Amino acid sequence: MSPSLSSELFSDSISTLTTTTESLDNGASDDTLHEECGVFGIWGADTAAAVVALGLHALQHRGQEAAGITSWDGKNFHSRRAVGHVAGNFDRDDAIRSLPGSCAIGHVRYATTGASTLCNVQPLYAELVSGGFAIAHNGNISNAETLRHQLVRHGSIFQSTSDTETIIHLVATSSYRSLLDRFIDALKQVEGAYSLVCLTPEGMIACRDPLGIRPLVLGKVGETFVVASETVALDIIGGTYIRQVEPGELIIISEKGLQSIHPFKKQKPRPCIFEHVYFSRPDSLIGSTSVYSVRKSIGIELARENPVDADMVIPVPDSGTPAAIGYAQQSSLPFELGIIRSHYVGRTFIQPGDQVRHLGVKLKHNANRALIKGKKLVLVDDSIVRGTTSVKIIRMLRDAGAKEIHLRIASPPTRHSCFYGVDTPERAKLLAAKMTVEQMAEYIGADSLAFISMDGLYRAVGEEGRNDAQPQYCDACFTGAYPTPLTDLGELGASEQLVRLSEQVAIA
Amino acid sequence: MSPSLSSELFSDSISTLTTTTESLDNGASDDTLHEECGVFGIWGADTAAAVVALGLHALQHRGQEAAGITSWDGKNFHSRRAVGHVAGNFDRDDAIRSLPGSCAIGHVRYATTGASTLCNVQPLYAELVSGGFAIAHNGNISNAETLRHQLVRHGSIFQSTSDTETIIHLVATSSYRSLLDRFIDALKQVEGAYSLVCLTPEGMIACRDPLGIRPLVLGKVGETFVVASETVALDIIGGTYIRQVEPGELIIISEKGLQSIHPFKKQKPRPCIFEHVYFSRPDSLIGSTSVYSVRKSIGIELARENPVDADMVIPVPDSGTPAAIGYAQQSSLPFELGIIRSHYVGRTFIQPGDQVRHLGVKLKHNANRALIKGKKLVLVDDSIVRGTTSVKIIRMLRDAGAKEIHLRIASPPTRHSCFYGVDTPERAKLLAAKMTVEQMAEYIGADSLAFISMDGLYRAVGEEGRNDAQPQYCDACFTGAYPTPLTDLGELGASEQLVRLSEQVAIA
Amino acid sequence: MSPSLSSELFSDSISTLTTTTESLDNGASDDTLHEECGVFGIWGADTAAAVVALGLHALQHRGQEAAGITSWDGKNFHSRRAVGHVAGNFDRDDAIRSLPGSCAIGHVRYATTGASTLCNVQPLYAELVSGGFAIAHNGNISNAETLRHQLVRHGSIFQSTSDTETIIHLVATSSYRSLLDRFIDALKQVEGAYSLVCLTPEGMIACRDPLGIRPLVLGKVGETFVVASETVALDIIGGTYIRQVEPGELIIISEKGLQSIHPFKKQKPRPCIFEHVYFSRPDSLIGSTSVYSVRKSIGIELARENPVDADMVIPVPDSGTPAAIGYAQQSSLPFELGIIRSHYVGRTFIQPGDQVRHLGVKLKHNANRALIKGKKLVLVDDSIVRGTTSVKIIRMLRDAGAKEIHLRIASPPTRHSCFYGVDTPERAKLLAAKMTVEQMAEYIGADSLAFISMDGLYRAVGEEGRNDAQPQYCDACFTGAYPTPLTDLGELGASEQLVRLSEQVAIA
Amino acid sequence: MSPSLSSELFSDSISTLTTTTESLDNGASDDTLHEECGVFGIWGADTAAAVVALGLHALQHRGQEAAGITSWDGKNFHSRRAVGHVAGNFDRDDAIRSLPGSCAIGHVRYATTGASTLCNVQPLYAELVSGGFAIAHNGNISNAETLRHQLVRHGSIFQSTSDTETIIHLVATSSYRSLLDRFIDALKQVEGAYSLVCLTPEGMIACRDPLGIRPLVLGKVGETFVVASETVALDIIGGTYIRQVEPGELIIISEKGLQSIHPFKKQKPRPCIFEHVYFSRPDSLIGSTSVYSVRKSIGIELARENPVDADMVIPVPDSGTPAAIGYAQQSSLPFELGIIRSHYVGRTFIQPGDQVRHLGVKLKHNANRALIKGKKLVLVDDSIVRGTTSVKIIRMLRDAGAKEIHLRIASPPTRHSCFYGVDTPERAKLLAAKMTVEQMAEYIGADSLAFISMDGLYRAVGEEGRNDAQPQYCDACFTGAYPTPLTDLGELGASEQLVRLSEQVAIA
Repeated sequence: MSPSLSSELFSDSISTLTTTTESLDNGASDDTLHEECGVFGIWGADTAAAVVALGLHALQHRGQEAAGITSWDGKNFHSRRAVGHVAGNFDRDDAIRSLPGSCAIGHVRYATTGASTLCNVQPLYAELVSGGFAIAHNGNISNAETLRHQLVRHGSIFQSTSDTETIIHLVATSSYRSLLDRFIDALKQVEGAYSLVCLTPEGMIACRDPLGIRPLVLGKVGETFVVASETVALDIIGGTYIRQVEPGELIIISEKGLQSIHPFKKQKPRPCIFEHVYFSRPDSLIGSTSVYSVRKSIGIELARENPVDADMVIPVPDSGTPAAIGYAQQSSLPFELGIIRSHYVGRTFIQPGDQVRHLGVKLKHNANRALIKGKKLVLVDDSIVRGTTSVKIIRMLRDAGAKEIHLRIASPPTRHSCFYGVDTPERAKLLAAKMTVEQMAEYIGADSLAFISMDGLYRAVGEEGRNDAQPQYCDACFTGAYPTPLTDLGELGASEQLVRLSEQVAIA
Repeated sequence: MSPSLSSELFSDSISTLTTTTESLDNGASDDTLHEECGVFGIWGADTAAAVVALGLHALQHRGQEAAGITSWDGKNFHSRRAVGHVAGNFDRDDAIRSLPGSCAIGHVRYATTGASTLCNVQPLYAELVSGGFAIAHNGNISNAETLRHQLVRHGSIFQSTSDTETIIHLVATSSYRSLLDRFIDALKQVEGAYSLVCLTPEGMIACRDPLGIRPLVLGKVGETFVVASETVALDIIGGTYIRQVEPGELIIISEKGLQSIHPFKKQKPRPCIFEHVYFSRPDSLIGSTSVYSVRKSIGIELARENPVDADMVIPVPDSGTPAAIGYAQQSSLPFELGIIRSHYVGRTFIQPGDQVRHLGVKLKHNANRALIKGKKLVLVDDSIVRGTTSVKIIRMLRDAGAKEIHLRIASPPTRHSCFYGVDTPERAKLLAAKMTVEQMAEYIGADSLAFISMDGLYRAVGEEGRNDAQPQYCDACFTGAYPTPLTDLGELGASEQLVRLSEQVAIA
Repeated sequence: MSPSLSSELFSDSISTLTTTTESLDNGASDDTLHEECGVFGIWGADTAAAVVALGLHALQHRGQEAAGITSWDGKNFHSRRAVGHVAGNFDRDDAIRSLPGSCAIGHVRYATTGASTLCNVQPLYAELVSGGFAIAHNGNISNAETLRHQLVRHGSIFQSTSDTETIIHLVATSSYRSLLDRFIDALKQVEGAYSLVCLTPEGMIACRDPLGIRPLVLGKVGETFVVASETVALDIIGGTYIRQVEPGELIIISEKGLQSIHPFKKQKPRPCIFEHVYFSRPDSLIGSTSVYSVRKSIGIELARENPVDADMVIPVPDSGTPAAIGYAQQSSLPFELGIIRSHYVGRTFIQPGDQVRHLGVKLKHNANRALIKGKKLVLVDDSIVRGTTSVKIIRMLRDAGAKEIHLRIASPPTRHSCFYGVDTPERAKLLAAKMTVEQMAEYIGADSLAFISMDGLYRAVGEEGRNDAQPQYCDACFTGAYPTPLTDLGELGASEQLVRLSEQVAIA
Repeated sequence: MSPSLSSELFSDSISTLTTTTESLDNGASDDTLHEECGVFGIWGADTAAAVVALGLHALQHRGQEAAGITSWDGKNFHSRRAVGHVAGNFDRDDAIRSLPGSCAIGHVRYATTGASTLCNVQPLYAELVSGGFAIAHNGNISNAETLRHQLVRHGSIFQSTSDTETIIHLVATSSYRSLLDRFIDALKQVEGAYSLVCLTPEGMIACRDPLGIRPLVLGKVGETFVVASETVALDIIGGTYIRQVEPGELIIISEKGLQSIHPFKKQKPRPCIFEHVYFSRPDSLIGSTSVYSVRKSIGIELARENPVDADMVIPVPDSGTPAAIGYAQQSSLPFELGIIRSHYVGRTFIQPGDQVRHLGVKLKHNANRALIKGKKLVLVDDSIVRGTTSVKIIRMLRDAGAKEIHLRIASPPTRHSCFYGVDTPERAKLLAAKMTVEQMAEYIGADSLAFISMDGLYRAVGEEGRNDAQPQYCDACFTGAYPTPLTDLGELGASEQLVRLSEQVAIA
């Protein structure tokens, strides 16, 4: 009997399906964009799974719904996946002991609710003819459906609804011989965004799509190589940051050390600009730039472009805080905490009965009434998606006595859906896709509303402005300029592309 | 987007992994043979899943470790699988409501412990190009490993370690067009024992391997067809028994009614004779014969072949009871309850400390001391596997004052492992493979020991005796005469076959 | 700070509130009488809690809803109580390790469902001025409500709705000095039935009410004293049976050995006769009489008093089995298994839809159709409570083709509620309180129905007959002759007593 | 039967003992002071329990370990208590539906871990002769042990180790007749700090100890009266703030409206000054003063008293943030986020193996390396308890390249334990009780360390300074000037008082 078929080879402990308080946020926070994933991998460390757990904890903001770790002990793979946070599921001794070995990869995921989704929780794992193969993916394959149809027609059986599984089946059915050739063969068939970390008996593979849409960094802890979605995951384990994995680069880390190849045709990179605005943690570096400093620069640009005569600058905590500090410093207005954020956010509480109904229920935010009463406020937030949160927050501030509220947004209007791994509502629900800025201001109830300009945003990230001929970033959520085909969308994609073209003209 | 890819198409609620008291039996009961599965299916009934739950409950003795139900509501498949009993997991309203639809199949399973085995709990499910396909299997594919290697080499990815999954991949990768042709193509490649119930959008398929090793019956409840492993599953739902599914028969039940085909080359059937001795419930019918009456007949034959001068006949409850009643009636000795069985069997309790250590801990059985003290007993049990239980029971009866203990066994000596879906220890652990009957009597501590003869057993099931040239049943556990090749065993299989041949001679 | 107030002194681990499959029986079994408790205690053994767990497991039939153990390690008390069976809650290493010490008592309980009842699960515990005091109680205090009112009026705060807590408060508020004097003072105020085991730092106290209504036995394992509700709890731990605790006897077991006192005025004992008929396990001894032999004798008496011309005798398993064996031996009719009992009883399953509705759902029992078809049956059961089970079983046997069904009951008609620790329905729901035997036979659907006579029952337990002037047993459920006042019933009690008197006349 | 004895009268659903991620913080956060409780009550609202749940959610920072709600539906009391957060345990429909009625009180608790403590989770409940009585308590009774001894000696049986239960037994055993008289009689016997909310069939009682040590406010939502520990609990339900419950005031809210009495001898109030510094939420009002503005004023005072030449002011988030903003504004240094706080705090993660061991694991905080490298920092924190957190944070900032670190603390040195409901370590573990400020600076590793002066703190809360003859606040944790006797401490208390006296002199 081949070892690859033995049930001991792969133990997958599906931990109890705990529902988590914080991850199922209350209504208000549905009105944000959600990064869909964070990945982490380490090859050759004692208690590798414990290191991965720490790394994932630092990446928790990239995916709060589920987490998983797969380890390789030189003989067998071990996997543990759970709905819920890393803390609570992977901080316990028994969890780490169930993941023996010196090599491990992990994944945090933003996903829809429900126990049944556990089959979608990554890392995914398969027994290939070459042996075990585990994969963790940040991004989204935009031709996954099309590929899936082809694969099913040829007899592949899918275990999940995840686009990531497509990659595994492409590897399994590739006509190449070596695992690496099969893997590259598979990637050449997929389009979209992917930062991948894979664990195989021969080594750990890390790679980033040719455009480098999603981030991936390389670091070291002692002599051991680590890959992670963001540098904060290196900080938490006391590691050092080496460099980004380059767009289109494929790194193999094994006992022989680190090998880097570039299997794809070279393209001009288009990393996601929204990582700067919202997704990444402020204490992360993207390339060699501090996210915190970019956000402060956005606030400075905003203050230059859209100054206001006001009493104070207040952020929508916590994502608006760095830009608000920048705005306050540039405008010489005092920075104050006008909204207090609860640390104990829960699901939507049951609404009490008639007497207290219709009274704004503020589970997450409360106005600092004594501070803002009778005052003119500059309110700084990171973005407007559906607009529902902005409506509630401005109503709350008005109820607390604010005299004027001038809303300043640290990103351009979000007018298009993301198909690269960010959970955005369909276009029809994006407020900026339906209204002018003036209409939005009225809808939201702000005395004035302004967004940073596209060039202002590019200046904040260190460019002179947007190069419309060849944009330096993926900014499709603002511009509709998708840098890859969107095959699965088909007809819809085509019309979407039309809209995009017409709007690109408008932007130009 | 194709509906077959939507996450709504297939909801699989993995219920909380409850450990169950009863299913994890105490040490003594490890010394029994375990049927590995029971199956049940219904096509076209209100609340089909509730009917299946009842049917599985009646089949619980065939598999106590896990249970699962998959339903089809005309549009989507729904599945719920749980470690533990049917009662407790499938008797609740929420469980049944999570399985909507008028067609459903189910499975109970004896299996090894551990949460990770949930991926092995049936029904298994796959999205094929023809649509959803769910399968429940009683039996064992004896060339599953060999087939699995071939399939993996061609890119199939297995989700479980179950031999049943092999069938699914053979269907998925078959070069035939229609699902039925693919299914038959798959079955023609497998060898071993299988009673299968499959659920597809076009109908429910039930079939039995060409030798009919494992049972499968056809019944009706109202106008609705039902298939089940045993007739007791028809009784519990108020159904009526029509007939057995014939060996090699494949039945398709759909809106068009019932269609029967015989796709395999006709062979002489070899149903498992141990179903009569132990596996089936005494209130089931096999063919048109009552299992209870066969077991009583075994007791009668035993009394004729091996009479004893004794005060009373007592069974090892509950499986030895019908044979003990037969023995008592034939021998005109009183039938008495000399051993009381607890209804509350649990895991192995923690052993108390020094003072009470080494004192026999009898969780499952207790001697009826006042009855048996100073008495000569005929003790009737169904079989001897490792012999450990017999040792304990006889010691317990001696401690309680029994004067003589004459053990009579309602089956011939169990000398060979089963490869057709019954969990037997390896040969080296079977007491009868290592010892003569006299040695066994001494080892066990009985004053005398006798097994029913092979011909006596065949007489009890209504034959004139065993036809050694062409045995009417699979009796490989007694004779080593395996009716199919045992491909996966390879060399081991070859030597096993040698042993078998030499022993067949001995039997003859 | 006094140690008696420290939180370490008493650790009470309330285990997770697991719902248990078996304990929540299906509808049919609601139609039985439930013993409310079993108790067990040991003083001075290694791993005392493990011994108690085994003892409680053997007493599980006396209370299936909840179990608890309290241990004393010479310094602190430890308690663990759980809804559910002993197995599953107290067979694990962590459970036993949470109960350190060489002295422990335990309790199994029949009780209503619901998490909130955990406060009623025994042993109950209190910190008295004399130190910790744990108590386990089998029986029922018939003036508990009246005493409770008085205690609350004087400032006692009750933690539970249990009548047992009344005893603790009486001890706590007694004006005597020593704990023993306080305890006796408390018992002199209560009326009703009680077999008690108490754990205190100075010793274990076991006592039985002056009439000895509920059983309690004394045994030894090695040199260590044990008390238990039944002798089977001694068997399971390899102990030896010494004698019953006498009615009105109070035993103190401590380092000084065993001390016996008789603090109450001597009365003629009135032990519960139903322990012989149903509650106790057949392998227990009551006094020196085997319960199994009494039940067989009841069957013999029944056959003498009410012979039938029939083909076979079949029991309602398992409680009717010994009497059926006796009936068969006396009548020379064959004993057969006409009804097969499932080992996997669950809650009421969800009823399937229209097509299979109204079809008898037989979760617990199934007719052995092939055996009974066309046959004349003597059916033996232990008792008739509401009659609902009898109706269903007879309908099931008729549906299976039985020609005649003659029901024989191993106890006299149950006409009165028990107020001594047995869960009986109110009188109005007792079938025998509403109908004559002929009416019952018709209601139930039996061809004939007969109960053992009162004198027949007394003969079976070894008496010459019932001494109506001074009954040897408590048989109030049959006669209404309650041996103690029923203070809490008040007016109702009075009228009940009138009924009792008139009926006693009728019996005489 | 009296209704007060019926089991239906009081249903207490102990929810499953879920362990919560956030509440069990990692090591660093053990080095803070923990407020022990928050209370909330409402009389006469639809879905009262849902309102209480919201109120408790807003008070979660006052107690994160456990929460409970007791409701009164005009006939029965209902209670639900759980270990863990309000969100997750009380935001679900089933939880609220299990708490019917228009009157309810609730409690959040900081407490030690372990399932057994559930008996200590409030509200506590007792059936008194006057009917049901539920109580929720914020504070600490400093003669609870002494009273408990007396009560046990007279026969009271305690259910918990909570000091609050003492009050209930005093009420139960009082010789007064009416519940109100009994309650006042009880309170006159207790010393220490208590803000209480009680629920009785006749009304809700709210009261505050004569010194008003712990806060309690009165509000309204619609026409319905509400009491709560802080005004933020009024904000969340859309209520309005009326006034504080006065020290020594007892308010009865019932169908007759609100009645206020002052049963105690009038004393000069001594509210806890630390509520301003740390415990209360910044968006709460104490009296009519904004906590946020007090904290900013503290920062302003700190900057005046202890200015530094630095590049920026950074807070230890989040508790140091308002004071840091004040310090920055007063000093005209930029306010920056030099430390990023994770929103996903967990338990102590398993430490990885050798290679990454000894590397600071920063689960809760991470340095904003790019910002602070080479910079001179003013670091603002609320207090120093053991000092362990300060050591770690300063080492983390140094590792990230900070050039100078000047620590400024928004409270005077914490030198004494609190006996009024705040969980402080014993004196020997308080850094400021063992070291001078210079020694502390060296131990912590700061370039300079300064605390706000006592008079500076009093100025920040609006006084001219501390009135040492008659202090306006309880500042015992800084001064040792305990405003009540500490009876339970006995000898220890006496010596503590000596220390206090000598130090008061020192302060003066």
